[in-house]
Amino acid sequence: MKIALDAMGGDRGSEMAIQGALAAVRERRDLRVILVGPRTHLEQQLADYTTGDDDILERIVVHHAAEVITMDESPVEAVRKKKEATVMVGFDLVKSGEADALVSAGNSGATMAAAIRKLGRLPGVSRPGIASFFPTVKKPVMLMDIGANVDCRPQHLYQFAVMASSCSRLLLNFDRPRVGLLSIGEETGKGNALVKETYDLLKQSPLNFIGNVEGRDVYKGDVDVIVCDGFVGNISLKISEGLAEAAMLMLKREIMKTWRAKIGYLLIRDAFAGFKKQVDYAEYGGAPLLGIDGTGIICHGASNAVAIRNAIEVAANMVRHRINEAIVRALGEHTA
Amino acid sequence: MKIALDAMGGDRGSEMAIQGALAAVRERRDLRVILVGPRTHLEQQLADYTTGDDDILERIVVHHAAEVITMDESPVEAVRKKKEATVMVGFDLVKSGEADALVSAGNSGATMAAAIRKLGRLPGVSRPGIASFFPTVKKPVMLMDIGANVDCRPQHLYQFAVMASSCSRLLLNFDRPRVGLLSIGEETGKGNALVKETYDLLKQSPLNFIGNVEGRDVYKGDVDVIVCDGFVGNISLKISEGLAEAAMLMLKREIMKTWRAKIGYLLIRDAFAGFKKQVDYAEYGGAPLLGIDGTGIICHGASNAVAIRNAIEVAANMVRHRINEAIVRALGEHTA
Repeated sequence: MKIALDAMGGDRGSEMAIQGALAAVRERRDLRVILVGPRTHLEQQLADYTTGDDDILERIVVHHAAEVITMDESPVEAVRKKKEATVMVGFDLVKSGEADALVSAGNSGATMAAAIRKLGRLPGVSRPGIASFFPTVKKPVMLMDIGANVDCRPQHLYQFAVMASSCSRLLLNFDRPRVGLLSIGEETGKGNALVKETYDLLKQSPLNFIGNVEGRDVYKGDVDVIVCDGFVGNISLKISEGLAEAAMLMLKREIMKTWRAKIGYLLIRDAFAGFKKQVDYAEYGGAPLLGIDGTGIICHGASNAVAIRNAIEVAANMVRHRINEAIVRALGEHTA
Repeated sequence: MKIALDAMGGDRGSEMAIQGALAAVRERRDLRVILVGPRTHLEQQLADYTTGDDDILERIVVHHAAEVITMDESPVEAVRKKKEATVMVGFDLVKSGEADALVSAGNSGATMAAAIRKLGRLPGVSRPGIASFFPTVKKPVMLMDIGANVDCRPQHLYQFAVMASSCSRLLLNFDRPRVGLLSIGEETGKGNALVKETYDLLKQSPLNFIGNVEGRDVYKGDVDVIVCDGFVGNISLKISEGLAEAAMLMLKREIMKTWRAKIGYLLIRDAFAGFKKQVDYAEYGGAPLLGIDGTGIICHGASNAVAIRNAIEVAANMVRHRINEAIVRALGEHTA
């Protein structure tokens, strides 16, 4: 199993990528990582981390890529201009079979654009999308799409449901994933025009469709897959991140007001850490690109080494479980 | 100032309404409340709370309404069938001038439908909507629309911006409210088709438009008004409520794991309470209906007496500040 890793993606530079790669290969002996980025720079950094550790060095190699797409570049323009960008070269490796998958914490729009350009779509897929795991009070739920497709037709949402359902079934070992449609009321007929039409498609499908799911049900964990367009999905993701940050800040301000609370905080700190670990995106291993003819995982820009390691793990599992074959099969069955 | 109160709205029955009304009239001597609902039931309950308090009894009266629209009824059907529903009778009072505004914690769709049916729209308004206050790490932000209009055109979002800006300026005393457009990236040209077209309209307007605002910026408090369609707004609101609930549950589970953390919780409890008060919708006084020819406030179904009291207060302030006149004037200027 060889996973290509965009070593220059992410806000925290190549060090995080290298540390994540090291953690991944140390954990699984059958894993190799190809660091994609400027050779000299990466080889030097890698050497600093692996003195005398020959076994590890054999399983992490560098593949040169001269250019980097930054976070604020326009995805479409960037992949057209920067032929030597890490994500372009990375997906070339996937295309040629030199790598089984690519993981990137860089510009997610550009990663998706590069994937479509280099690998193309799976047969039958009209719009590839990005799925993401959301923590809940029970098991994580997979939400798709979180930003690749901002204007969707019912058929697109229907395909997101099929793809995410296949992925969730194999990756999280759900028997028949419960699929919900994100809307503003649980009753049939609630929602905007897109949701109402999608509802009818899903109702008639062989999926385990449980109906509409409201915003307040996302974190309850009573559904395994939630489908929405990329505009709504992205806002759902980002507003959750923003609220979590704001809440921590507001709570800290309250705690700092009294000595009593400060002492209480010292005693409760481990519980906070345990809670944070439960909701930390780093634990969830990134967001799979679904619908492309190959395997790609997008990580949060702020990913640390743990997040990178977990994403490599998820990428390997996606390949192992032949998610793409399952998607093609399911799409064939569901439209037949 | 006379505020009509739907005494039968809300999940917690007429007691909350009566307690909220009592709190409101005790606080402001220039305020009268008209409880709208079944006369015998309400007068009996009211008598239980106000033994010997003649001054208060003079300022709370009951206006009979025989029917109640429940939470799960279809708004359009309900307002067509139930002519004697509390919200219908309540808006009749506003129409005739017997009340200055109506407050309801009942079925919000039905309250909006009743408002449009009984009072009609303000001149120049194409779609009335529901605005709501979101707590942030700084001042609260007003988001519109939170659910009345699920399929919108750019012109509708533009009018939401004008209406919410007028309301926010007068109610929260902002000089020139900063208006943001909810989207999936800050840069111009990011977003779905609706947002892109709305962006151009807002850019050319005399509003203090600061551009796109991402989901993660909603709780930062760097913008005073956020505009989105009712589908996205409703999901933003509900996902926030759901996350807050889930987070509290997960944190509590972690705390219950050790004695140390349990003791810490006892010391930190007041800080938690202070934090909860900051984010509690009850403190924000309900969601104003904007664009109707009259004043109406929708409260959360789970409203307690504090929430009802604050909503009555906000309703009175909306009337005092002549929000509707400001909206009509602003719409006239902005389309001229």
